[in-house]
Amino acid sequence: MEIGLHNVADFARGAAFLGTGGGGDPYIGRLMLQEELRRQGTIRLVEPLDLADEDLVVTCATMGAPTIMIERIPSAAATVACVEMLSRQLRRKVAAIMPIEAGGINATLPLVVAARAGFPVVDADGMGRAFPELQMVTFGIYGCSASPIVLANERGETVVIEASSNTSCERLARSLVVAMGGQAQIALYPLTGRAVREFGVLHTLTLATRIGEAIAQARRTTRSVTEVLKAFFGAEEIGRHATEIFRGKVRDISRSTRRGFAVGQAEIVSIGEDGSVCRVDFQNEFLAAFVNGRPVALVPDLVCLLDAETGEPVTTEAVRYGQRLLVFAVSVPAVMRSPAALATFGPRAFGYDFDYVPLEQLH
Amino acid sequence: MEIGLHNVADFARGAAFLGTGGGGDPYIGRLMLQEELRRQGTIRLVEPLDLADEDLVVTCATMGAPTIMIERIPSAAATVACVEMLSRQLRRKVAAIMPIEAGGINATLPLVVAARAGFPVVDADGMGRAFPELQMVTFGIYGCSASPIVLANERGETVVIEASSNTSCERLARSLVVAMGGQAQIALYPLTGRAVREFGVLHTLTLATRIGEAIAQARRTTRSVTEVLKAFFGAEEIGRHATEIFRGKVRDISRSTRRGFAVGQAEIVSIGEDGSVCRVDFQNEFLAAFVNGRPVALVPDLVCLLDAETGEPVTTEAVRYGQRLLVFAVSVPAVMRSPAALATFGPRAFGYDFDYVPLEQLH
Repeated sequence: MEIGLHNVADFARGAAFLGTGGGGDPYIGRLMLQEELRRQGTIRLVEPLDLADEDLVVTCATMGAPTIMIERIPSAAATVACVEMLSRQLRRKVAAIMPIEAGGINATLPLVVAARAGFPVVDADGMGRAFPELQMVTFGIYGCSASPIVLANERGETVVIEASSNTSCERLARSLVVAMGGQAQIALYPLTGRAVREFGVLHTLTLATRIGEAIAQARRTTRSVTEVLKAFFGAEEIGRHATEIFRGKVRDISRSTRRGFAVGQAEIVSIGEDGSVCRVDFQNEFLAAFVNGRPVALVPDLVCLLDAETGEPVTTEAVRYGQRLLVFAVSVPAVMRSPAALATFGPRAFGYDFDYVPLEQLH
Repeated sequence: MEIGLHNVADFARGAAFLGTGGGGDPYIGRLMLQEELRRQGTIRLVEPLDLADEDLVVTCATMGAPTIMIERIPSAAATVACVEMLSRQLRRKVAAIMPIEAGGINATLPLVVAARAGFPVVDADGMGRAFPELQMVTFGIYGCSASPIVLANERGETVVIEASSNTSCERLARSLVVAMGGQAQIALYPLTGRAVREFGVLHTLTLATRIGEAIAQARRTTRSVTEVLKAFFGAEEIGRHATEIFRGKVRDISRSTRRGFAVGQAEIVSIGEDGSVCRVDFQNEFLAAFVNGRPVALVPDLVCLLDAETGEPVTTEAVRYGQRLLVFAVSVPAVMRSPAALATFGPRAFGYDFDYVPLEQLH
């Protein structure tokens, strides 16, 4: 798989879809990457199954509320500095880098870092979507440590944390991000090639590109976005349940920045005569959707808001009063529905007082 | 100068005096040190003028609100870990350690670390008293960097910060301390022997011991504590202005923990018939005293509360309703009254909207 100028728009669009509303403005991620691709040509992704057992792979990202990310473009230079400092801390050469999440700017940023500093990028990630917290990663669930984590900003400030657990790592890093003005670049989860193969969500950069292609394709044909995406995810090789759960007009959106997160909810009212209301909650990412108070899609299943006309994914920051949207949901693979996984990023991990119910059982 | 079981009580009492209400319960500091001295015998302090120019000297301390320090005894093991990690980060051997401040537990802790890990301790510090923030240090004022700073806790968690300024170092470290539960051990201000000699406040551990002796001496004679301390500080070799500024009974004390600091004020009412009221403000340490609204002692001059009977220093945490106290003030040396020094720890640095006036001019 290669990412180049020919498919960067599809890749960014698909990453925004997997970002489920979080991960920052996909347009900024696309611009950053386009600039690098113009200079460097295409970037060939590393097939995760080709990694050697002992290869050192590290993830890198920007950490902070998307509310701030749209004001302050994540610094590629500071991200490179993070990866290099993590390598120095471990006194080992980094064989490849990898996105920590497949959504939003954080899917794009490692490719920018790769183009700048020459690191190969693995076609995999640790979430298969986007999540707001550092412990919400498959590697963490299966026993890998998020730390040492390196944080850096454009002022040349760096912090190295060695935490006692991934939850503690999240808490300490989050407090620093808030103190650093709401955003910092990070490199974390030093992994072996073997751990990437065993615990990673594989081929998600390829998946993002294909989702982006599918949405673009719907525009060129008479088929609706819903129809195309249902067919795409339902195909045997992917085998996910995908469904449109609502369609309507935004009648209310509330958001605030709390403890370094963008938190809030959107209310979408049906255009038809039934007056149904869909509420979508978010913490950086969309977490859950409820129609007339009844849950219709729950984290970790993907809740995506798409522009009703173009099928373009809409981030939490971009939701506006009066916008016509469709709420689309996609099931996640079994590996993300294990008891350990649900304890880390199921509804209760986000403060809901009920258990996860798989998307396909809610319909 | 040697600290041993014979003078540890005087040393701890004098450190509590220089701590101006902050730096934690001196009794805990004394107990920690006594235990080590019973095992190790006396500790010989390093004369700062004997340091070689290129010796690496680092300061170490416990960071957090005293409110928490009295609940959770600072960990000597985690402090040793900080010093050792800072040494590894710098890839240099630590020639000696030093207190960052001469007050409270932080004057005692480096001696405990020394006894445990074998580091020599320099008879000097960077405040000549206690201050609540990391940039409020003579070394910082004269251009030395507080970072890299290492933070650690008893859970084995460590953080290394490389900040762009000492104020930024304080802000980042404080946010971590709050996230770590209000307390962490730190090692910071890697200094050359030459910088210690030039910018340090020298012989402050000796000074603390002698202040403690003077207070003990007053108890054994008919002379009052005020009389003895005035004579002690006024002696030619010390040459400081010292004065009792108020005497009365605590009628109100308010304290809260804000942004990781113990903040509040005490009101002391005169026992005589004039009904005068003395207000003493604090942020970890006592900052300023006002009699009937008029300033009578301002930071960085020392404001100390002493038990009216015994002369024992009283920390902000120990102030209680109905207690009989005397408010004692001591001027600081000229090096702590320069424009740069006052910009860093004068009244305006603590949010007052007026300039510093030297103690001797207020009386």
